[in-house]
Amino acid sequence: MENQKFTIGIDIGGTNTVSGIVTDDGECVGQTQFLTQECRTIEDFRKKLVSTITQLCLNQKSYGRLAGIGIAAPAARFREGIIQSPANLKWDSVNIVSILQQDFDVPIIVVNDSKAAAVGEKKYGKAKGMSDFIVVTLGTGMGAGIFTGGKLLEGAHDMAGELGHVIVEENGRMCGCRRRGCIETYVSANGIRRTVFELLSLRTEESELRTISYQDLTSEKVHELAKKGDHIALEVLDRTGAYLGAMLANVAVSFDPEAIILTGGVVHSGNFLIDPTIESFNKHLLAQHRAKIPVIASIFRDGEGAIVGVCSLLEGMPNELEQPSSTKRQERVTSTFS
Amino acid sequence: MENQKFTIGIDIGGTNTVSGIVTDDGECVGQTQFLTQECRTIEDFRKKLVSTITQLCLNQKSYGRLAGIGIAAPAARFREGIIQSPANLKWDSVNIVSILQQDFDVPIIVVNDSKAAAVGEKKYGKAKGMSDFIVVTLGTGMGAGIFTGGKLLEGAHDMAGELGHVIVEENGRMCGCRRRGCIETYVSANGIRRTVFELLSLRTEESELRTISYQDLTSEKVHELAKKGDHIALEVLDRTGAYLGAMLANVAVSFDPEAIILTGGVVHSGNFLIDPTIESFNKHLLAQHRAKIPVIASIFRDGEGAIVGVCSLLEGMPNELEQPSSTKRQERVTSTFS
Repeated sequence: MENQKFTIGIDIGGTNTVSGIVTDDGECVGQTQFLTQECRTIEDFRKKLVSTITQLCLNQKSYGRLAGIGIAAPAARFREGIIQSPANLKWDSVNIVSILQQDFDVPIIVVNDSKAAAVGEKKYGKAKGMSDFIVVTLGTGMGAGIFTGGKLLEGAHDMAGELGHVIVEENGRMCGCRRRGCIETYVSANGIRRTVFELLSLRTEESELRTISYQDLTSEKVHELAKKGDHIALEVLDRTGAYLGAMLANVAVSFDPEAIILTGGVVHSGNFLIDPTIESFNKHLLAQHRAKIPVIASIFRDGEGAIVGVCSLLEGMPNELEQPSSTKRQERVTSTFS
Repeated sequence: MENQKFTIGIDIGGTNTVSGIVTDDGECVGQTQFLTQECRTIEDFRKKLVSTITQLCLNQKSYGRLAGIGIAAPAARFREGIIQSPANLKWDSVNIVSILQQDFDVPIIVVNDSKAAAVGEKKYGKAKGMSDFIVVTLGTGMGAGIFTGGKLLEGAHDMAGELGHVIVEENGRMCGCRRRGCIETYVSANGIRRTVFELLSLRTEESELRTISYQDLTSEKVHELAKKGDHIALEVLDRTGAYLGAMLANVAVSFDPEAIILTGGVVHSGNFLIDPTIESFNKHLLAQHRAKIPVIASIFRDGEGAIVGVCSLLEGMPNELEQPSSTKRQERVTSTFS
């Protein structure tokens, strides 16, 4: 027991923050979550995070000692340890690593959530053995983690794979990035909600969707109504898939991957979204690519891929990501927390 | 003199085929070209190519002996040595390496023209020292060579970087790939011609462009008329730049490169195309990318970048590209051709 250690992985999403213990062999246990949205300030959020981590450690003594904390977050800048001007969070740039380092004297890293999910997918999920693949995260927003030639694509400014901000409609929907027509305004959970309200304005059909306010509507609810045969809900998911599939076909001609893996809440609500996505993808694909690039759903749910992914980077001190050269994080100090 | 050697590089374009001697230190001399378009069959083309290569060798004895032939071509499949179903050439798939190997007993390789241009740009051009950059080739069609993390991006099926086939208009212009709305149908030399004819149909202004048939119109002519202040010509190039810049901004959020380098005939006809391209690029860029990703014109003209690029691969037997394991090309046989 003395030698056993565990890490804690945290996936910060625009809606939920999911945390879990990750064991030495990459399993995620004891998951717990709270609403990110309910934290109005970064100080609220910090308190919630510290109490979550502390509670997880106390509950999970049997796993040994805490060896590090991995954070997966949108707009994360690994080298600086910050979350930079996140479009879907309530606060501005923050050095999340320094903040947590005050309470936990273990190595802490922050990695872009989609990149973490891609690492998790390669190490434990559907991308095992693949060199070129793309993991698309559909949550409150949309992101991507991309491997090319066996390596995680970071880009020249640590910003590669911001596929959610590919513009698909000139002068289209307003986006959190202050531009218009980004794909995430059409296909993320938020995009689905917007399409519902667009269709409610265009159509005259009855729909239970007419009884729900914009604020209360979730993409889960849309899926639930689609299952019941609600015409508006079905058309919303068809349209969403049509957008997503067409955009992924453009990604395919650009990157030529072995597979595209979809992850995030909206992916796991049955086939109402996946089916039209694949149909549209195949329709838009170059002839030479046909039947060569599967679009598949991740085996992970609720940020688990990102959680095990970011923790695997912490463990090995990655070959996929370069470690910053002059921070405490590098020292691999581990403290006994049990 | 005995020890000196040279290679021949050939850039096969939809309109012209340019050939040149490449010296040991990567200089391209004695360039010559013929019209690809005038070769109706692959046999016509082979004859023309063999006589060109032979003539180049005879003329350039002073450079030593022929050590290899590098071919840059659209739709090239390096590993198989073929040009596969090229959209802008008059013949179907052909094993160009085997065909030339009958006449020249030296190592011969065929590499995608845009990838060759990217290699040339990294070795001798504007991408020296860069790890992440994109070279966009605007010719009869449009292609791209992409470096990520210091490596040429090949993709899972040797087809990465087909950026010309990113669809930008659902149900847009018909493309040689049998789909619709590909960016190359708007921004290649051919795309420029199509935009001229679209605008001639929409507008009533006088223009010298009204005196030229579709077949006779070149993008050089459009530039020439733009210089003279022709309104239609100017609007055509503005529109072309608007399309290209918007599309390159999407490429920037996907790949996060250090720079985007434009090459090919239409790039070197003054600033009528480059300026609106950069304007549109900056307008569509994510805030975090602003002022970080220059869009620049290559120093190379007339396929020279691809010619020196493909020959540099031949020389070193590349670390950028894997060599096929069981072909004659690998033997590094050199013959004396002087």
